[in-house]
Amino acid sequence: MKKILILGVGRSSSSLITYLEENARKYGWEITVGAHNKQSGLKRVSPPTQVKAFDVFNEDQLNNEVQASDVVVSMLPARFHPIVAMACLKYSKSMLTASYESDEILEMSTRAKSQGILFLNELGVDPGIDHMSAMRIINRIRERGHKLLCFESFTGGLIAPESDNNPWHYKITWNPRNVVLAGQGGPARFIQEGTFKYIPYHRLFRRTEVIDIEGYGKFEGYANRDSLKYIDKYNLQDVPTVYRGTLRRPGYCRAWDVFVQLGATDDSYTMQNTEKMTYKEFINSFLYYSLEDPVKTKLYQYMHIDQDSDVREKLEWLGIFDDTAIGLKNATPAQILEHIICNKWALEPDDKDMLVMWHKFIFQESGKQKTTLLTSSMVVTGDDQVNTAMAKTVGLPLAIAVKMVLSGQIRLTGSHIPTVREIYEPILNELELYGIRFNEKELA
Amino acid sequence: MKKILILGVGRSSSSLITYLEENARKYGWEITVGAHNKQSGLKRVSPPTQVKAFDVFNEDQLNNEVQASDVVVSMLPARFHPIVAMACLKYSKSMLTASYESDEILEMSTRAKSQGILFLNELGVDPGIDHMSAMRIINRIRERGHKLLCFESFTGGLIAPESDNNPWHYKITWNPRNVVLAGQGGPARFIQEGTFKYIPYHRLFRRTEVIDIEGYGKFEGYANRDSLKYIDKYNLQDVPTVYRGTLRRPGYCRAWDVFVQLGATDDSYTMQNTEKMTYKEFINSFLYYSLEDPVKTKLYQYMHIDQDSDVREKLEWLGIFDDTAIGLKNATPAQILEHIICNKWALEPDDKDMLVMWHKFIFQESGKQKTTLLTSSMVVTGDDQVNTAMAKTVGLPLAIAVKMVLSGQIRLTGSHIPTVREIYEPILNELELYGIRFNEKELA
Repeated sequence: MKKILILGVGRSSSSLITYLEENARKYGWEITVGAHNKQSGLKRVSPPTQVKAFDVFNEDQLNNEVQASDVVVSMLPARFHPIVAMACLKYSKSMLTASYESDEILEMSTRAKSQGILFLNELGVDPGIDHMSAMRIINRIRERGHKLLCFESFTGGLIAPESDNNPWHYKITWNPRNVVLAGQGGPARFIQEGTFKYIPYHRLFRRTEVIDIEGYGKFEGYANRDSLKYIDKYNLQDVPTVYRGTLRRPGYCRAWDVFVQLGATDDSYTMQNTEKMTYKEFINSFLYYSLEDPVKTKLYQYMHIDQDSDVREKLEWLGIFDDTAIGLKNATPAQILEHIICNKWALEPDDKDMLVMWHKFIFQESGKQKTTLLTSSMVVTGDDQVNTAMAKTVGLPLAIAVKMVLSGQIRLTGSHIPTVREIYEPILNELELYGIRFNEKELA
Repeated sequence: MKKILILGVGRSSSSLITYLEENARKYGWEITVGAHNKQSGLKRVSPPTQVKAFDVFNEDQLNNEVQASDVVVSMLPARFHPIVAMACLKYSKSMLTASYESDEILEMSTRAKSQGILFLNELGVDPGIDHMSAMRIINRIRERGHKLLCFESFTGGLIAPESDNNPWHYKITWNPRNVVLAGQGGPARFIQEGTFKYIPYHRLFRRTEVIDIEGYGKFEGYANRDSLKYIDKYNLQDVPTVYRGTLRRPGYCRAWDVFVQLGATDDSYTMQNTEKMTYKEFINSFLYYSLEDPVKTKLYQYMHIDQDSDVREKLEWLGIFDDTAIGLKNATPAQILEHIICNKWALEPDDKDMLVMWHKFIFQESGKQKTTLLTSSMVVTGDDQVNTAMAKTVGLPLAIAVKMVLSGQIRLTGSHIPTVREIYEPILNELELYGIRFNEKELA
């Protein structure tokens, strides 16, 4: 019996657990889930999967569970991965996550290598499937001797058209905290036509571009974090344009930018008197004082939002001018905003989400002047509120990688992301069986 | 002989050292200056003051110098004060600084108290003279039984009208790094008519108000850091408006905001290829890509700067569209911007700076409906490029406090700021002898 330890059971863990449970008998796996809240963990699993109440700060428990396992999957918030990784180093167990490869994890890479274990990061959808599907095409272009001139890649976790019934065309399909904090933590960085570009957070949502995906309509993309670090990871040193972005439906970014401009997405300080504050008072905290102007008028004036702007409808639909009490003690602006959007952007029981990925490549055939535009897109729709497209696309690559690690199919050690052919090829192939497949188009 | 140890000799230390040297014989003081660069230290002192090459990270040296002293003045960058304070705790020596009382220093307050020593912070001009002069008036208003309804306080280190010959009406009279970083590190916070207000950095320079000081013309003020923490320090719990601000000449903030919006004041990451980058390329790093538009056009378009805007003149005067090479390796945007402004905003040999402070109080006489507006302003002009108004107003309060500590006139222990009458009263009185005096006006 091989033992799989899954730490954390968030929104995106359902497909991961289902896949592993379905394959457990066949491959002789035993699955243990460590859940912060045992009851909510139990809802996600079926027997014989075990659920244990788990606290990552309980060092003894962490050590015992890691020691008893053969492989560890951390679905905890990313900041806890280094704690789990330390225990993995201690007992020589490999760890897989869907999170960005952090500096802390990178620093442990040499030790992991010498222990003969693997830290496999960025195994979800974005980051994850984006790397795998892009690398497959990049390698193909190169093997054919073509020269890559441009690589752009966009992903968005959105709501399916049939469940899209609000003016933002958005609902919460993953960690709502990350929805509020999206884009924070350093400028977005990329290279465009050979020029390095930097966009600070407070301009990010106004530097969008429009993308049209046949059959699914228009989207807008904004720059996603640091694209420059993927130049080395994808081996794109000679490519003049490298840009990674995030997709929303058109109009989302301009309206969201109002919260960014206000300072309402700031998670770095707690506000005064938040427990008794109303939604309207929250917004007013960021506006100039006026004896006469109502809060709504002040906001539209301050942000230059015209009377016919769709931004008004979006903001008013969220209820931000209501006299509803927030009821959170010592909250940061970001926590309050999360509270407001969670109420309005919640998935209803029959709602289906939609995961959209779109890659763009421009390459030049060797010895020819002609350039070719190649696009590759993937759209996955969720089954329901639990088996979401997000859960599938985050959980399945992870689950398949767990299988490959346990079966000895992946023999890498140290810290990696799935840009290596021996990892991405089998995962992408198996994902197709689950309807996660790409549609390519070439245009001269 | 009492021994005074001064660590660091920056722009603002000339008046501090001159005062202490002038009083050294009379009071029997011995002065030692620890300078990072001994040569530049020597330029600031006269015999018998000693200058030693000093490195705050040389623990033995720090310990030896602190142990040999009776009182320590730290003029080092604020982040080094806790290191000096640790040595002061070890050898029971009091430390005085012109910097904000940091959390680290506050945490050492109890230990300082039990050692019988004083950490006296915020003893410069802003913070410093602002606290002292405001507290004197606030206490007077209260002693007369009046009720304070509003307190606002603004300070600016500017250029004297006779030396004001650039379109920004600004030159560097203190640490240029702080000019670039001004306003960063959390939102500005204050309370206005009973409502707590928060302004994020990226809106700060567009939320100004105009202040007119008789004989000196108009200024604009933007909110300065966290005014809320002074509610307790000034004992203003019942006052509906408490606001601290920073002064510039009108037009400065709107133009400076262009750099904030671009992300050019960010000090959190290093840019690619900065050594060979030109000023124009630096600006272009923050702009959208365009095959056709020149950098200047893109900037004006992106920032909505009209053709008749004074912002254009200011930006072009700084040379930001020049092909001059920056020549700094691995620099942050803030470091590059500092490099650019230092060239242009340097004080010329005969230039005089000007320190402006302006307080506004509104109070209600007990039992009456009538409210009174009281303003109190201070304008100090520098003598030359070395004996600046900045150096006088930062250095003299510190120097006078050193005298008071050595003579036993201040007997407080623990960490403090000069809001206590026994500190501010003698300092304000002595400052008047140096031309640092306030002009009050009352209006019913």
